[in-house]
Amino acid sequence: MLEDKNQERTALEELGEFGLIDHLTQYVKIHHESTELGIGDDAAILNHGDNRVLVSTDMLIEGVHFDLSYVPLKHLGYKAVMVNLSDIYAMNAHPKQITVSVAVSNRFPLEALEELYAGIQTACTNYKVDLIGGDTTSSTSGLLLSITAVGATAGDAIKRSGAQEHDLIVVSGDIGGAYMGLQVLEREKAVYQVNPNSQPDLEPYSYIIERQLKPEARKDIVALLEKLEVKPTAMIDVSDGLSSELLHICKTSKVGCNLYEDKIPLDPQVIQTCEEFDIDSTTVALSGGEDYELLFTIKQEDFPKIKANPNLTVIGHITQEKEGSHLITRADTKIPLIARGWSAFTKDAKH
Amino acid sequence: MLEDKNQERTALEELGEFGLIDHLTQYVKIHHESTELGIGDDAAILNHGDNRVLVSTDMLIEGVHFDLSYVPLKHLGYKAVMVNLSDIYAMNAHPKQITVSVAVSNRFPLEALEELYAGIQTACTNYKVDLIGGDTTSSTSGLLLSITAVGATAGDAIKRSGAQEHDLIVVSGDIGGAYMGLQVLEREKAVYQVNPNSQPDLEPYSYIIERQLKPEARKDIVALLEKLEVKPTAMIDVSDGLSSELLHICKTSKVGCNLYEDKIPLDPQVIQTCEEFDIDSTTVALSGGEDYELLFTIKQEDFPKIKANPNLTVIGHITQEKEGSHLITRADTKIPLIARGWSAFTKDAKH
Repeated sequence: MLEDKNQERTALEELGEFGLIDHLTQYVKIHHESTELGIGDDAAILNHGDNRVLVSTDMLIEGVHFDLSYVPLKHLGYKAVMVNLSDIYAMNAHPKQITVSVAVSNRFPLEALEELYAGIQTACTNYKVDLIGGDTTSSTSGLLLSITAVGATAGDAIKRSGAQEHDLIVVSGDIGGAYMGLQVLEREKAVYQVNPNSQPDLEPYSYIIERQLKPEARKDIVALLEKLEVKPTAMIDVSDGLSSELLHICKTSKVGCNLYEDKIPLDPQVIQTCEEFDIDSTTVALSGGEDYELLFTIKQEDFPKIKANPNLTVIGHITQEKEGSHLITRADTKIPLIARGWSAFTKDAKH
Repeated sequence: MLEDKNQERTALEELGEFGLIDHLTQYVKIHHESTELGIGDDAAILNHGDNRVLVSTDMLIEGVHFDLSYVPLKHLGYKAVMVNLSDIYAMNAHPKQITVSVAVSNRFPLEALEELYAGIQTACTNYKVDLIGGDTTSSTSGLLLSITAVGATAGDAIKRSGAQEHDLIVVSGDIGGAYMGLQVLEREKAVYQVNPNSQPDLEPYSYIIERQLKPEARKDIVALLEKLEVKPTAMIDVSDGLSSELLHICKTSKVGCNLYEDKIPLDPQVIQTCEEFDIDSTTVALSGGEDYELLFTIKQEDFPKIKANPNLTVIGHITQEKEGSHLITRADTKIPLIARGWSAFTKDAKH
């Protein structure tokens, strides 16, 4: 009854995901000195005396971010926590607390929520994080999760904005597994819908399926960097795909980059599954997402400290902004790096 | 395909809203000293050196918490922020930052989100709160909002647990307006559905409709208490209804209470509309909810400081736990106070 029938309508897709956020938050003003960094990084940075308090939040929605036909609720609870902790680690800080809000429709029995919370609980125990509150409500359709993580660091939080020319680009672990795990699960779902008696052999895909269903946030990398006495100049976590994340660092730091295709760390199972699905593995690594690895830049002088470590791979270097951001292919051609997630506004845009 | 067909099913309704939270969070362990208070109050309390950091979160879901047929998006954005700020004020602290996560289906054009954010922005400006981050994503149905508020206080945060025998029970403003405003709006919606050309005269209900659509969090009361040098012994905000909130204080503080029916502050418009709808106004005040007033207890010796203030009403006193919690009716009969929200698991349960 209060609807204005003559209003203009601009489809959300027209702005793209990050354009939408920029547009909606363009008038945001900061009132408090304690707000050291607001929108635009993995987490916000609050200044409370000697400590920096980090705050990050993520929403996961059934049918958009997960499919309960192949995601066990315990794994979903675990992963939802990981997604948020990863954002705190991406500031080179340690998560301490989370709030968990859950909305469920009444098709979920108590036992389903128990499973979900068992996964949340396991994540909290494994990562020593305190569940401090939340909101439990009913939904009109499906399951929704909204988690906020709070972290702290006595030192400086590492932003996206500190990368400088000549810095090396480093990524932890390997990339593309979570996306290929999703492809296998989607294929098996399609098979199951046709033939519910099929018994899929998922053993050859165990690593990539685990990468999709039960990722681990890289707490160990933050600890490793402390031990190695390496302080990254910029850092981000790989949730949307390597190219999108690297471009975030370049844009915020006002630099360019050269990323070497042959350096991108891929697990043999990712390469094999890409061949089976006839997808280019570099495209998967660049645009796949959900790997929750850490992508960061370090000063060249720190290279000796990290070079022997099997968890870390140098994949490129930072250039001047005017040189642009490029992928150097195996054939030694230089092509512009573009942020091409698999879907524009079908996933989400963290800000 | 991973579903276990033989699992037990317990309907969520069987536990009730707070029983569900207690059940799901029964194994929560606290790992960090900085977690001063976890689940169970309006906000969690984190200890960062000289400061206490408060964290509170709320989820609002279309079709459960709001109806866009009569809630303008700008008001919704404003109210969603208020709901969260109110939880920080209820700790006698000041909100400083919020994160806002929004999920929308593609039936919403950009202009709708602009309206929503205009309301959020106005709330941030009026209450001097910084919008520091969030998550924007697509939903499969409708609009969802999840807000987390972060507050700080240099002094002690006021918990629900500090009420003691002989303390006075005080409430700010008046109670029941938001619920009666909702009744009017629901009635007009029903009329509109039958006759879209009807021109409702909402003027006689302007106060209670504003209480429903555009509530204000009681920042002024926190400031007033500071000025009056009154430190409440326990505090909570009235989101679920007076009886439910008072019982939270009593349960957490391990005390009983006597609440006087004739002391409950009601606006004339609430009384009038209750008569028109043939609803008992005391029932509305006790169980209506969404008033976002502050309910708190003070030491008797502080009574002279507050008694002249039109914003504050003493509505009862705290007794020993064994005496139980009672409503003293106008007819001077003593009946047990029960927490009876208008719906059990149809709304939400903050923890």
